Amino acid sequence: MPGQQVSPNLALDQLVALRRARGESIVHLGFGESRLPVFAPLAQRLRLGAPRNAYGPVAGDLAVRQAVSGYFTRRRMPTHPEQVIMAPGSKPLLMALQMVVPGDVVLPRPCWVTYGPQAEWAGKHVFGVPIPDDCGGVPAPDALRETVRAARKHGRDPKIVILNSPDNPTGTVAPPTLVREVCAVAEEEDLLVVSDEIYRDLVHDPDTPFLSPAEVVPDRTVVVTGLSKSLALGGWRIGTARFPMGAWGTRIREGVASYASEVWSTLAGPMQEVAAYAFDEPPEIRARLATDARLHGAVAGAVYEIMRNAGAACRRPNAGFYVYPDLSPVGESLRRKSINDAITLQARLLDEFGVAVLAGAHFGDDPHAPRFRAATSMLYGDTEEQQAAAQETDDPLRLPHIAAALDAIETSFTKLCS
Amino acid sequence: MPGQQVSPNLALDQLVALRRARGESIVHLGFGESRLPVFAPLAQRLRLGAPRNAYGPVAGDLAVRQAVSGYFTRRRMPTHPEQVIMAPGSKPLLMALQMVVPGDVVLPRPCWVTYGPQAEWAGKHVFGVPIPDDCGGVPAPDALRETVRAARKHGRDPKIVILNSPDNPTGTVAPPTLVREVCAVAEEEDLLVVSDEIYRDLVHDPDTPFLSPAEVVPDRTVVVTGLSKSLALGGWRIGTARFPMGAWGTRIREGVASYASEVWSTLAGPMQEVAAYAFDEPPEIRARLATDARLHGAVAGAVYEIMRNAGAACRRPNAGFYVYPDLSPVGESLRRKSINDAITLQARLLDEFGVAVLAGAHFGDDPHAPRFRAATSMLYGDTEEQQAAAQETDDPLRLPHIAAALDAIETSFTKLCS
Repeated sequence: MPGQQVSPNLALDQLVALRRARGESIVHLGFGESRLPVFAPLAQRLRLGAPRNAYGPVAGDLAVRQAVSGYFTRRRMPTHPEQVIMAPGSKPLLMALQMVVPGDVVLPRPCWVTYGPQAEWAGKHVFGVPIPDDCGGVPAPDALRETVRAARKHGRDPKIVILNSPDNPTGTVAPPTLVREVCAVAEEEDLLVVSDEIYRDLVHDPDTPFLSPAEVVPDRTVVVTGLSKSLALGGWRIGTARFPMGAWGTRIREGVASYASEVWSTLAGPMQEVAAYAFDEPPEIRARLATDARLHGAVAGAVYEIMRNAGAACRRPNAGFYVYPDLSPVGESLRRKSINDAITLQARLLDEFGVAVLAGAHFGDDPHAPRFRAATSMLYGDTEEQQAAAQETDDPLRLPHIAAALDAIETSFTKLCS
Repeated sequence: MPGQQVSPNLALDQLVALRRARGESIVHLGFGESRLPVFAPLAQRLRLGAPRNAYGPVAGDLAVRQAVSGYFTRRRMPTHPEQVIMAPGSKPLLMALQMVVPGDVVLPRPCWVTYGPQAEWAGKHVFGVPIPDDCGGVPAPDALRETVRAARKHGRDPKIVILNSPDNPTGTVAPPTLVREVCAVAEEEDLLVVSDEIYRDLVHDPDTPFLSPAEVVPDRTVVVTGLSKSLALGGWRIGTARFPMGAWGTRIREGVASYASEVWSTLAGPMQEVAAYAFDEPPEIRARLATDARLHGAVAGAVYEIMRNAGAACRRPNAGFYVYPDLSPVGESLRRKSINDAITLQARLLDEFGVAVLAGAHFGDDPHAPRFRAATSMLYGDTEEQQAAAQETDDPLRLPHIAAALDAIETSFTKLCS
């Protein structure tokens, strides 16, 4: 078996909770969760869904699959309800894809902590391909082609590439030209594209161009998404996948449905009720998404500025709630403090500065590079009142609890980097 | 990959729904669901749990794991919260165990439709061992020993035996003496026992002796259960596992937690709220379980009588809501109707008699044996009113809708078997 470790982000979150319970003051930037209250209409739908105690269809009932079809269709991906499978989160769907589709997996490096371990559980080999300089979540196209060809020369069989735009950990949208280039390589090398678009509705500026691989190579792209990030429902576990039309897509979808029927049966009925409502995107949901995206942009932007001022190199985040600084430009200061790798950087930031971040090494990045992910969504507050205030104000950076956290981060990194 | 098929019970349920929607009248005995309304206090807990949108610990929060510990401790299995992992149903936990524990799997034959496919998804070989004549869910001990030894001689490595008492599909409790014998073989042959006790709270007569393998070989038994059957919450997806103390148990538990963190993250927060309440077993929950167990006993008993009167051999059900008749004694009548195998029997029962059952072959039984499982819990009614009436009355067999369904079954089987 691949490991005995709990996923590092979940493990760090548990550690921070433990240390805070012991009275330690920690600025928690270590967990990829949108820490905002449940939007009231979603709670109402959960209540309305309570009578749904029957198993129902594996893929989800028709109403929820119609809502998801509408969601994708409005995003230039015409979708029939037959193409949709619901699940308790997008994680089980990503795992099912890895179990069902034979061959090895290519991942952008760095990427979300879970793609790699899932591939290992599924008995696959993982090939990491560096991301470009200006964004994350997609492998640099030429390096992707080279990696696939070299792997095949060595007898491996890369067959899947996972893309994630906007991405975790860099918080950036891949530009359409780059998406087209990557899709061209996928076509050329006959790769299935798994496009994890769970941060799509959190682009800070709605005018940022977004292109899904499913618009470019529709027959070879599975899109996965969920409500964990966009509607702050991580703890409710609602995910969905859109499979391609055509013979290959249908075969993969039937395989995932088969796996689902043996492993999770179906998404819980009350959660299907919530999903049918949310993916239908009534005006109040659209307004909520827009509000939250602005909040994420403001706070991620502020942390980005702090990191740049402290001397870090950093891609400018334009979606989601992550910043991925690289402290290499101030490497001399780190080495003087005996910080020579990413894991040590994470540990010392927590122990000496009370700042919890996740080392780049956990995202598959070079373990010697002093990089880490800061999840800025953890700064909205520890109480529902603070979080609601952050959503309601035009200038979240001036809220006392957010300003204080940003000050603490600035002080810590000024000290660390000098 | 093992297959492209949806689990046969879920597939049959979808087929019946489709044909009923087309106006066909079908007596649905084909799906293993307790078709009863949601108990009101459970819906209330779901509502109270709505604010729980954070991911929280992978295994579930302390409150729910304490409740589950209490549940097991009251059943003569002293349990610490550390030993417990929650999940969206017991299926993902059973799958995780198969992924985490190396070696092949031994199953009672017949057994629940999902154990075998899960083993295949996990790359394991499955060995079926016939059940005894008087109950199901456990392999006959001598045959178990022989199968394991023969498998090892042929270079295989059976390492896990899955037990299920009370069981699906025969609806019987394994007597304590038999459980001890099977546990002795597990000890002798160094097998991990996975004890699926999801029907435990549905024993018809509370005085029926029940012994868990975890009481006999505690260091090598993982117990899995959930609320899908006992509290009719299949569509809510709430399951849990209890791992052994000791080095082996701890290693397996850590492996399952690691797998869980990569595949399903955690049980949804609102469902943890429900589970904490239900596993704590306040008086109203205990009363509800007792009421439902009586109802299951009455209706399963009636179907058992019909089958016996029609000439079937059948174990007398004493738990859950299944009956597993064997029509071999009237095989001549079947052969005259060109019914020579279990799958044909299932198809003809549906097409010509409008009775949906699941062929024994789907449970791993001899495909030529005319056996099937009837899920009698599907007879409680199609509306909440009918179902509630069935729960409230002392004599559910006299309710018009249940009496009519039983009449239809009797007529069909009298015709089929003569």
